[in-house]
Amino acid sequence: MPPTDRIVASITLRIRYAETDAMGIVHHSNYLRFFEEGRSEYARQRGQPYSSFEAAGYFLVVTEATLRFIKPARYEQQITVTTWVEKSRSRGIDFAYEITDTDSGEILVTGQTKHISIDKSGQVSHIPAMWQGW
Amino acid sequence: MPPTDRIVASITLRIRYAETDAMGIVHHSNYLRFFEEGRSEYARQRGQPYSSFEAAGYFLVVTEATLRFIKPARYEQQITVTTWVEKSRSRGIDFAYEITDTDSGEILVTGQTKHISIDKSGQVSHIPAMWQGW
Amino acid sequence: MPPTDRIVASITLRIRYAETDAMGIVHHSNYLRFFEEGRSEYARQRGQPYSSFEAAGYFLVVTEATLRFIKPARYEQQITVTTWVEKSRSRGIDFAYEITDTDSGEILVTGQTKHISIDKSGQVSHIPAMWQGW
Amino acid sequence: MPPTDRIVASITLRIRYAETDAMGIVHHSNYLRFFEEGRSEYARQRGQPYSSFEAAGYFLVVTEATLRFIKPARYEQQITVTTWVEKSRSRGIDFAYEITDTDSGEILVTGQTKHISIDKSGQVSHIPAMWQGW
Repeated sequence: MPPTDRIVASITLRIRYAETDAMGIVHHSNYLRFFEEGRSEYARQRGQPYSSFEAAGYFLVVTEATLRFIKPARYEQQITVTTWVEKSRSRGIDFAYEITDTDSGEILVTGQTKHISIDKSGQVSHIPAMWQGW
Repeated sequence: MPPTDRIVASITLRIRYAETDAMGIVHHSNYLRFFEEGRSEYARQRGQPYSSFEAAGYFLVVTEATLRFIKPARYEQQITVTTWVEKSRSRGIDFAYEITDTDSGEILVTGQTKHISIDKSGQVSHIPAMWQGW
Repeated sequence: MPPTDRIVASITLRIRYAETDAMGIVHHSNYLRFFEEGRSEYARQRGQPYSSFEAAGYFLVVTEATLRFIKPARYEQQITVTTWVEKSRSRGIDFAYEITDTDSGEILVTGQTKHISIDKSGQVSHIPAMWQGW
Repeated sequence: MPPTDRIVASITLRIRYAETDAMGIVHHSNYLRFFEEGRSEYARQRGQPYSSFEAAGYFLVVTEATLRFIKPARYEQQITVTTWVEKSRSRGIDFAYEITDTDSGEILVTGQTKHISIDKSGQVSHIPAMWQGW
């Protein structure tokens, strides 16, 4: 469940036909893309969009991901991706996510991703100042 | 590391341009698709392709996934997806994966996925006989 | 350019990181997905979402697609997909699209797709009454 | 039909589950990705992989694409993508494609893509010498 003691960002997406598979439900790989949209929205709401992170010469790469699939989503369904920072480190950030059905609030998928900051040479680096302490 | 006491299936894939992202590397969501290809190959090598599983009226849905991203892959690189069964249950199967650079053998990504068997009505069901005891 | 003598539907999307490729721009295959979202929005605005089309036992399959790529789009850019019906036939529909940069109005991509209606047995069929004369 | 008076490159792919959609068939956007794999294979067979094109400081961007969808493909089906150069220009290349069912030889999808060469600054440029006259 999203924490109440820190910033939590939500974004609503509508499932696209191309995101479904032959089971008639959203292909599970798309949830990593929805998590990424959750991070993008979180950064925008903090006022430092991820594009500014890359513009500053850094990349935030994914080192770990965990997903629990509780209930499938289908074409045209609206889902809400809620994102928060679980842990902020000097060289990385851990995000957590909860995806719910926008109408009913039912939980569909939960997960975490861990990231490290690298510079253009590919070296692990400190998170740029503007992103520290998230 | 792949176990030596059971069947292990390997398949080699070449990274497609469409699988890269603006970081110049494979977008991390694609590894869930490569794991899926690993499972498909495993089932084919066991002689019971996943299409026969669905033809029998069942779906094997993903309930959990874990991924560790160790080293990025790039366009045209050849990767080998090695897949094995970690645990076989009456109503589900747990798979594990190791993705390596085909040339050097270096480990790129490792992971696990957990699955349950459902029937056409969406009810959790026993794994069909031909897939049991994997 | 969108016509002025008929219904035209617009939807705004924000480019996702996963939609970019190693060139740093949106991979061209995604525009077929954006066109599809344009059709979905068009059908919703007409009051007959595509999900109701399938619920009625029909599929609207793509038989032809043409795309002209004029200017690339990048991560976080907002694009507007404008969609209209070019030709309505008894057994099919032709759609046309214009994708612009939401802020500047600059044209990024234009295209057409042709579709036929098939029933569950895979036979070409008349467009269901509620979709006729679009 | 592939021409007989010039180089024609073929590659065989197996349809991935993630490439299907709720219609139970390959989502049409994937054929642009298969065409791209066709081009990649063509370039490899000519001895100048596309990665060497980018390494030389150029990008081959898509300016137009046309697709005709004749017959759907399904999960695990093997398809053969046959690719040839339709027209070689000083600043661009036009490719044509035919995708067939590998077993039966039946035509599934045909298409063309047009490309121009740009340099790192984004300016239209001559095709590098090694790619000229294809």
